[in-house]
Amino acid sequence: MIYPPFIDGLKNESKQHRQVISSHNPKTGEKLVDQYPVSTFADLETAVNNAQFAAGHLGTSLPEKIARFLETYAENIEANGDEICRMAALETALPYEPRLKTIELARTTNQLRQAGAAVRERSWRMATIDSAANIRSMYGPLNGPVIVFGPNNFPLAFNAISGGDFAAAIAAGNPVIAKAHPGHLSTSRLLAEAAWEALDAYGLPRGTVQMFYHCAPEDGLKLVAHPNVAAAAFTGSRGAGLALKQAADAAGKPIYLEMSSVNPVYVLPGALAERGEAIAAEFFGSCTMASGQFCTNPGLIIVPQGQDGEKFLQTAAALFQNNASGPLLSEFGAANIQRSLSVLQKAGAEIVIGGTGDGFRHTNTLLRVSGEAFLVDPAGLQTEAFGPVSLVVMARDAQEMTATAASLEGNLTGTIYSDSQGSDDDAYDRLAPVLATKVGRLLNDKMPTGVAVSPAMVHGGPYPATGHPGFTAVGIPASIHRFAALRCYDNVRQHRLPPELRDENPTGDMWRLVDGRWTQENITSEIAN
Amino acid sequence: MIYPPFIDGLKNESKQHRQVISSHNPKTGEKLVDQYPVSTFADLETAVNNAQFAAGHLGTSLPEKIARFLETYAENIEANGDEICRMAALETALPYEPRLKTIELARTTNQLRQAGAAVRERSWRMATIDSAANIRSMYGPLNGPVIVFGPNNFPLAFNAISGGDFAAAIAAGNPVIAKAHPGHLSTSRLLAEAAWEALDAYGLPRGTVQMFYHCAPEDGLKLVAHPNVAAAAFTGSRGAGLALKQAADAAGKPIYLEMSSVNPVYVLPGALAERGEAIAAEFFGSCTMASGQFCTNPGLIIVPQGQDGEKFLQTAAALFQNNASGPLLSEFGAANIQRSLSVLQKAGAEIVIGGTGDGFRHTNTLLRVSGEAFLVDPAGLQTEAFGPVSLVVMARDAQEMTATAASLEGNLTGTIYSDSQGSDDDAYDRLAPVLATKVGRLLNDKMPTGVAVSPAMVHGGPYPATGHPGFTAVGIPASIHRFAALRCYDNVRQHRLPPELRDENPTGDMWRLVDGRWTQENITSEIAN
Repeated sequence: MIYPPFIDGLKNESKQHRQVISSHNPKTGEKLVDQYPVSTFADLETAVNNAQFAAGHLGTSLPEKIARFLETYAENIEANGDEICRMAALETALPYEPRLKTIELARTTNQLRQAGAAVRERSWRMATIDSAANIRSMYGPLNGPVIVFGPNNFPLAFNAISGGDFAAAIAAGNPVIAKAHPGHLSTSRLLAEAAWEALDAYGLPRGTVQMFYHCAPEDGLKLVAHPNVAAAAFTGSRGAGLALKQAADAAGKPIYLEMSSVNPVYVLPGALAERGEAIAAEFFGSCTMASGQFCTNPGLIIVPQGQDGEKFLQTAAALFQNNASGPLLSEFGAANIQRSLSVLQKAGAEIVIGGTGDGFRHTNTLLRVSGEAFLVDPAGLQTEAFGPVSLVVMARDAQEMTATAASLEGNLTGTIYSDSQGSDDDAYDRLAPVLATKVGRLLNDKMPTGVAVSPAMVHGGPYPATGHPGFTAVGIPASIHRFAALRCYDNVRQHRLPPELRDENPTGDMWRLVDGRWTQENITSEIAN
Repeated sequence: MIYPPFIDGLKNESKQHRQVISSHNPKTGEKLVDQYPVSTFADLETAVNNAQFAAGHLGTSLPEKIARFLETYAENIEANGDEICRMAALETALPYEPRLKTIELARTTNQLRQAGAAVRERSWRMATIDSAANIRSMYGPLNGPVIVFGPNNFPLAFNAISGGDFAAAIAAGNPVIAKAHPGHLSTSRLLAEAAWEALDAYGLPRGTVQMFYHCAPEDGLKLVAHPNVAAAAFTGSRGAGLALKQAADAAGKPIYLEMSSVNPVYVLPGALAERGEAIAAEFFGSCTMASGQFCTNPGLIIVPQGQDGEKFLQTAAALFQNNASGPLLSEFGAANIQRSLSVLQKAGAEIVIGGTGDGFRHTNTLLRVSGEAFLVDPAGLQTEAFGPVSLVVMARDAQEMTATAASLEGNLTGTIYSDSQGSDDDAYDRLAPVLATKVGRLLNDKMPTGVAVSPAMVHGGPYPATGHPGFTAVGIPASIHRFAALRCYDNVRQHRLPPELRDENPTGDMWRLVDGRWTQENITSEIAN
């Protein structure tokens, strides 16, 4: 069966003569039977028109309505959770339990509920009031759709139709046009169905949430540059991300990218001596979980050369070798890894273990290189291999460790393991300030996989890990600000102000920055209007 | 005399064979005697290297030191205020009093002091703490210089070496490389001298604040894309801004632009009947002050057609005609206005009064067009004429007014005048939601010139007024966030955290978002580190 996209009011003609695509079962490599259309640009424009109408509607909707949509959507996902997770397991080969059902589904609905709570509570708007001057400002919606491109590695929690970008864009009051990932088309369809049910339940226009399955690459570029599109968000490969960025930039549209990252992990000598074996086990777990296909996968680990370093490498290599790797998410997965391995080897890295693969399968792979060699070609040796692959850098000393940190590109995360007795403190103090400038999140003593949905989380970082160092893709309320415009009301009469900026606090618990103080109080001083 | 740029450590060779430029006296059109070099790219790279060193130094400097630099710089400017303002008056023909000395100088030093206070108080960092998960984040510096390009119209308060962008970039902890505007080179030199004196007083490296006077346009593009440059800020024409944006975007560098804006002013029928003459006088004052060369100049005013509208136009036209215009800031000023007038006329506007000029002089100019004609070519009729020029649109009714608002590009401001008795309320309610989506700041009943330095101010707006709708160029702390990176510390041991993120509040009055509550308190719960 060919399923239509979630775009209201498509004309029949536009459904004809389309190409179709299907997802695969990564375990068998077989193409699944459900077929999905490659949408024409005319269909995408219909989606944009629907979304423009929806943007006007959302702009005048009560926060309560948007909040309840998000919460009902979460309920609908849970109600159909078995089917959704079974489908996701089929399309991605990620384990139904605990990964999809207990962990990722819960994370997804939790994110949607957090977004709903933020919409209702409204502190995300950062209402700022200068009562003497009667100037008041806050974040508001962008007044147009946000185009969301999701990645292949989280079919639920980062799905363009249900993940963090989706939740943030909707919470800011914007419609979303999601592009399903070809790796999990039917999972995306089930989610979109749950979203439309929730829209219908609250009388929100279907243009609020739309989804198409695929389009010609040039149509994707045209879409993010469309005059009536407000912004875009992308999670995926650097090549695709930068192409979209160029198109959006040229049209003056904000775009938020989460691209490649090797997530360097530094193990200082004291930590290595103290608990090298335990760290090797943590490293193995973090690097090979879900076949290593995490944005925050530790793809680069820097240890001191010498006896402890060699022992660490041997311990890790044994774990990498003795545990079978799982299937990859994409039929191109192994070929992409092979291409990266070839770049890494040309740049001087040697394969210690693994290094082979085909189609949906690739062996767990460890490479090694000296710190000296790393510093000769740091760009080549930071090539990301999206899978259960990591490069171990054997550094001569603390100074060389710091030099490797200085040679890094922007990354999502950077980790330092140090000992518990303080013998690593000097090395830490030299390394950390350098590493901190290269990453969005600095960790101590734990692997970078696992991105908590916390208001303090930063899933971001300097270019080219992302497109802008001032934002995060995970964590509410901060992630919402990506999809918001700052709006100021200067000398506007009290009854014409948005409720959030009137003297009376409309929720009673919304935080506002009033005359330099964060407060939940009403404003009682008299304002001359 | 040829003055060298404020770049430490320039080699002698690089000073040879340079072209030089000079500012003019707009009153006489004469070139001033002081000469300033066109810097080579090698010299700009020296500045970047100096700034890289300074960035490292600032990253480890106490906030107190940066705050005192900003405050001492403000004091130095005041101490030399007479000379600076006399020079600015000579170079720009803006009145020494009250404009430059009483208003703009005070605004400038006030901004620097507000930035200093923000650095000391630290709430701008938006420290966010999840105490249970021990995840903590805040805004920090970008770790590289910010290149600032200032405009011609505020030789002090928006000067690249002393204005709002400068203050915000330094407050975030970044070095600044300023490009002086050719219209006020000597004023910029006097300011830079005051800045270096203040740097020296606190032992901050001179790479913290540098200034060059001019460079080849292609070198400016290379500069904002330089691998060691962190970000850029530009205030000026759309053409130059978009060229810089393209270069910065391609290199993955954030750039903040404040470009053209016609700042539509809507006068609703009741307001026109109630106080049309007073509004005409306000309009005249706002549009011709400083020869109309404000970013927020009301270049477009929409009034109801008919008797009241014609009377308004006559009143305004008389004021425009009976008051002589002042000199323009640039020798190209009149030619640029003439070019814009030609576009406006081709698009259907008719000149009511004025319309002539040459060099530094242009007559006060009013044009008119029907609302119907405006809607035929809204792009052409939004052409900015940077000077004492405005286009009066005669709208048939409230519906046509709203239609013109819907056809607007992004603007810095939008204004609505309505009557005091409520007869305009229906028209306001239809117009305001449309206009609000097109502007950064919506005003009631006052002209848009006059941008208060308030935490609630938004001097920003949708593209192409600026490059990003989520930021403001004026108002502390929000303007600082443009030049900051979000940095997260996950499971980092207490003593290794930046002071702002430790359990104890280091200033006692810094606001932090702790477990969902804004507070100035210490964190007393036990954190397992």
